[in-house]
Amino acid sequence: MRNPDNPRLSQVHLTQGLFADYAELVRKEVIPYQWAALNDAIPGAEKSGCLRNFRIAAGKEEGEFTGMVFQDSDVGKWLEAVAYSLTNHKDAELEALADEAIDAIASAQQEDGYLDTYFLVKEPHNRWKCLRDCHELYCAGHLLEGAVAYYQATGKDKFLNVMRRYMDYIASVFGPGEGQLHGYPGHEEIELALCKLYDLCGEEKYLRLAKYFIDERGSEPNYFIQELKTRGDAFHWEGNDKQGMEYFQAHIPVRQQSEAVGHAVRAVYLYSGMADVALRTGDEGLKAACQRLFDSVAHRKMYVTGGIGSTYIGEAFTFDYDLPGDTAYAETCASIGLIFFMRRMLELDGKAEYGDVMERALYNTVLSGIARDGKSFFYVNPLEGYPLADERDPGKQHVKTVRQKWFACACCPPNVARLLSDIGAYIYRREGSAVTADLFISSELQLPGGAALVQESGVPFNGRVRFALRGDCPGFSLRLRYPHWAENVTCTAPCRREDGYIVVEKDWQDGDEVVFSFGMEAERVYADARVRQDFGKVCLMRGPLVYCLEEAFNGRDLHLLRLTREAEIRTELPDAGDTPYGLPVLRAPGERFVPEEADGALYSGRERGRWQAQTLVFTPYFAWGNDAVKGEMTVFVRQ
Amino acid sequence: MRNPDNPRLSQVHLTQGLFADYAELVRKEVIPYQWAALNDAIPGAEKSGCLRNFRIAAGKEEGEFTGMVFQDSDVGKWLEAVAYSLTNHKDAELEALADEAIDAIASAQQEDGYLDTYFLVKEPHNRWKCLRDCHELYCAGHLLEGAVAYYQATGKDKFLNVMRRYMDYIASVFGPGEGQLHGYPGHEEIELALCKLYDLCGEEKYLRLAKYFIDERGSEPNYFIQELKTRGDAFHWEGNDKQGMEYFQAHIPVRQQSEAVGHAVRAVYLYSGMADVALRTGDEGLKAACQRLFDSVAHRKMYVTGGIGSTYIGEAFTFDYDLPGDTAYAETCASIGLIFFMRRMLELDGKAEYGDVMERALYNTVLSGIARDGKSFFYVNPLEGYPLADERDPGKQHVKTVRQKWFACACCPPNVARLLSDIGAYIYRREGSAVTADLFISSELQLPGGAALVQESGVPFNGRVRFALRGDCPGFSLRLRYPHWAENVTCTAPCRREDGYIVVEKDWQDGDEVVFSFGMEAERVYADARVRQDFGKVCLMRGPLVYCLEEAFNGRDLHLLRLTREAEIRTELPDAGDTPYGLPVLRAPGERFVPEEADGALYSGRERGRWQAQTLVFTPYFAWGNDAVKGEMTVFVRQ
Repeated sequence: MRNPDNPRLSQVHLTQGLFADYAELVRKEVIPYQWAALNDAIPGAEKSGCLRNFRIAAGKEEGEFTGMVFQDSDVGKWLEAVAYSLTNHKDAELEALADEAIDAIASAQQEDGYLDTYFLVKEPHNRWKCLRDCHELYCAGHLLEGAVAYYQATGKDKFLNVMRRYMDYIASVFGPGEGQLHGYPGHEEIELALCKLYDLCGEEKYLRLAKYFIDERGSEPNYFIQELKTRGDAFHWEGNDKQGMEYFQAHIPVRQQSEAVGHAVRAVYLYSGMADVALRTGDEGLKAACQRLFDSVAHRKMYVTGGIGSTYIGEAFTFDYDLPGDTAYAETCASIGLIFFMRRMLELDGKAEYGDVMERALYNTVLSGIARDGKSFFYVNPLEGYPLADERDPGKQHVKTVRQKWFACACCPPNVARLLSDIGAYIYRREGSAVTADLFISSELQLPGGAALVQESGVPFNGRVRFALRGDCPGFSLRLRYPHWAENVTCTAPCRREDGYIVVEKDWQDGDEVVFSFGMEAERVYADARVRQDFGKVCLMRGPLVYCLEEAFNGRDLHLLRLTREAEIRTELPDAGDTPYGLPVLRAPGERFVPEEADGALYSGRERGRWQAQTLVFTPYFAWGNDAVKGEMTVFVRQ
Repeated sequence: MRNPDNPRLSQVHLTQGLFADYAELVRKEVIPYQWAALNDAIPGAEKSGCLRNFRIAAGKEEGEFTGMVFQDSDVGKWLEAVAYSLTNHKDAELEALADEAIDAIASAQQEDGYLDTYFLVKEPHNRWKCLRDCHELYCAGHLLEGAVAYYQATGKDKFLNVMRRYMDYIASVFGPGEGQLHGYPGHEEIELALCKLYDLCGEEKYLRLAKYFIDERGSEPNYFIQELKTRGDAFHWEGNDKQGMEYFQAHIPVRQQSEAVGHAVRAVYLYSGMADVALRTGDEGLKAACQRLFDSVAHRKMYVTGGIGSTYIGEAFTFDYDLPGDTAYAETCASIGLIFFMRRMLELDGKAEYGDVMERALYNTVLSGIARDGKSFFYVNPLEGYPLADERDPGKQHVKTVRQKWFACACCPPNVARLLSDIGAYIYRREGSAVTADLFISSELQLPGGAALVQESGVPFNGRVRFALRGDCPGFSLRLRYPHWAENVTCTAPCRREDGYIVVEKDWQDGDEVVFSFGMEAERVYADARVRQDFGKVCLMRGPLVYCLEEAFNGRDLHLLRLTREAEIRTELPDAGDTPYGLPVLRAPGERFVPEEADGALYSGRERGRWQAQTLVFTPYFAWGNDAVKGEMTVFVRQ
């Protein structure tokens, strides 16, 4: 059973700092921008058609379905973001827009509860006939997450009731019974959403359905392979005939899986659902599978930025230690899913490392996914950007060096919005008398009896983190993740180190404070030598932030730079406006290889050029490309 | 006008050594193997259907068309290889097989001369309606090359007459006249073939047609774009809608082109045809375009192996200095086309560098394309092979680490066969009283009056090259390309260096000999620093041969090796059987990074491991993977 003490978003209030700013950005810019996008009101952006599809399905408007087979999910994610935003910031106007969207959704629901506009409009006779490719259950999951969040934020149950009806219908269609379909989603998502519904209303059948989807996955005879035969080998997507069952994590039953394979977003959504079910059922086999899959991802298949997915073909994992920087996929959504998984593993298994990975993905890949103005997005988060390759190498055209406005496949922008407006729910855990802080984000946590634990965090600017109690709270122990990047820590109260956490046990009085100072020096970070793409190279981190070299600060041809070994790295506060967010830049001595005047020969018996001193300027990775001018970027640099 | 003194294949006889062995291999193994393949008689190989298609088109057999739209070209290339083989080695049995194939081809010819089995069998009403995608003129070109070669080899004119009739028909269909099509081939090839026909029979109209195809290409309004509209945007190939006009070198008129773009094989076939036309018309604008395009290829877009085509997507060039080793396409056919182009540039423009490039492509990429036993082939010739990537990274699945038996798209194997059996025609040029040797291949060149110039070459084993005159020949000057790899040369006769050549002028008597000794030390070769994939790395060459590191000789994880700077490279003759062909191996001091016992963390603040001395063993690149055991390989190594 999930621990009911774990704070919900409504119990955590962001106070100030980077993430409060992002929550504001989401509220003021991203949510309105995405509302416009969902309503096709952004000039020059690709048409979404998302809300129009619901009106067409409801018979309220004439027209063709627009967009992808998973178009419905965009409004689900948007509503979820709106719900989180409303939780901490009431806004009647925004709530009215949300209600309008919910009305559109509700109006499209069928008598039996069914609700998927693609099939209602385009293929009414093909319901549930293409689970492998067609995202029906995925869309249902996203709408359900939105409905749960919206109910929790506003107390309004219209959307929730719509989605419960839909889930009841789905529970009648899928299951072990005769006449039921023994299938499961091609794109996982509904499993974790069903667990949220179960937590909200306590009905076992939703948990049972989530568990059913997870248990059936990859069992023999393989449902997708059977289904495909029934369909006469008709694929929804061009090229999908090349996808093996690994792509869907359906090659073997999930309890037997030990290696993260296939489409990275699907994988981490599945693992999140597995952890959810394990947490609520005490299923040790499922928990062990989650631990193995975490090991596979975090120790063999994850970029230093917390990005996952080494190839754009299938947006997928490849093989152990294969982490190319220039062809990386490292989709924003995949790192968001990784954060979902980590949050659940913290509840299920408690290891501090899950928090480290969560933080890594959050500060680097997720924040990289969204521009400073909230209006453009990276779908792909490479570790090397090279404008000419983006333009002229078709194998790298997925790698953009400037953020894009809106995507035909618009999964990432609303996903970023919902995570950043819900980030408060990722900061703390409570178990018994212990309060654990997994993230260092300035915030207030409501405690029983009207008290509040106030966190003031300097991260990622500096390593000073202050906790103070406001009001009275019976004695509790404060546990902080000891972050992987801190070489040392000092604390103003007696504390001990325990399993990756720093624990302060004291008798708290109103106004008491404890201040932690984590060492936050810039440090060199090396990948395991088996990562052949990074071997001989180094990257710089400072605290949770990965840094990079950008053409704007270092000139072009970044591959000709090298960092001097063992030289001091200086952390410098930029002059006003020098870097986005006022974060420090790192300066370190290095060299540039200056080629001789070319003699025309491509190959030569000698190295033609000489090394010349150049100070290398490293800036936070997540902020790269924010000037919207195409330029080179690299995270790893020769040493 | 092409210089009629330039020796034809029949005037050059390979005597002994690597290329005589290859010619033998082609004769004894490759040609019979490919005959079996063309007749679908190789168990386990993909069906070719090539000859059957002709019988079906002739109404002599029932059935469906098999294979690609360019399937006819395979038998054209095979017949060309047979013709070259028969030129130096009469073989009545083989000639009978060729005649059988020619009968099949001839029987399919239509009243009006048309002869393309794909359209005859599958789309009889679509003749010439899809020049952009459908290879009709390409197939016609390959059949024509075969016909010209077969006539020259055997004196039999059946095939030649068939193809002349076809060309006469094509000349009536295409041209500037009203009612004629103003189109040109989607895949260039017929241009150079028409020049061969013109040389053979002297009829201007064939040269005119070649020139017409070249002149029309890329002119406005763009024929392919117009054609596509007429076809209602129907593409023959899935994905072809993504190809821009650069893919076809049809984005601008050829005389305005300065950068090699698009599909690499198409590009070099076009450039060969351009050089052919320039040579026969004295067209200076066309010659200048050829020079610029050579510059683009050889100085900015060519692998050290003479491979071209940096991406498998479109099998194409990308941008300047973009030469990834692990995702290279570097198709065998593209390097063969580059050799065609270089041979023509030698005749057109005479610079020794064309010979250098020809030699580089020949010894490395082309020889890499064929296994030692003549029965398996590399289509793609990467500079890095990594078996796991081939298996599990879909973006690298084109890169195989063992040669394949036969391809559904079987362009490379017969292309290798026709080049290696015709290589005699690439060795010498004659202009006036000068004999030029562009390649160092043991052979006898017939001179006027029954004399012969005998070349005995140690290349690529050693740098000793002996020329002797047998018989009497009026005074001539002997010119040798001074190869890029030779630091020094000694000669037993007075000689001078001139524009990249060594020239010996003497009054030759029967039995006279001149011996050249080219220094052939192993040397380090560096790519231009702008090649970011090779920067900080080095490769070894000895003479014309590029060397590589193979897992079989150096252990796995080749990326963990580095070559010691400035250390001596020892050239060692292998023990018997140690390396294929008995070529020397190179040994040099280096180091291997030995990782520590893994602690599980993918990223760490320190380099976890230590360098340990290891002798690196380099073997000839072209011979890699010949043990048919999958293993790693790399050409460039850290230093």
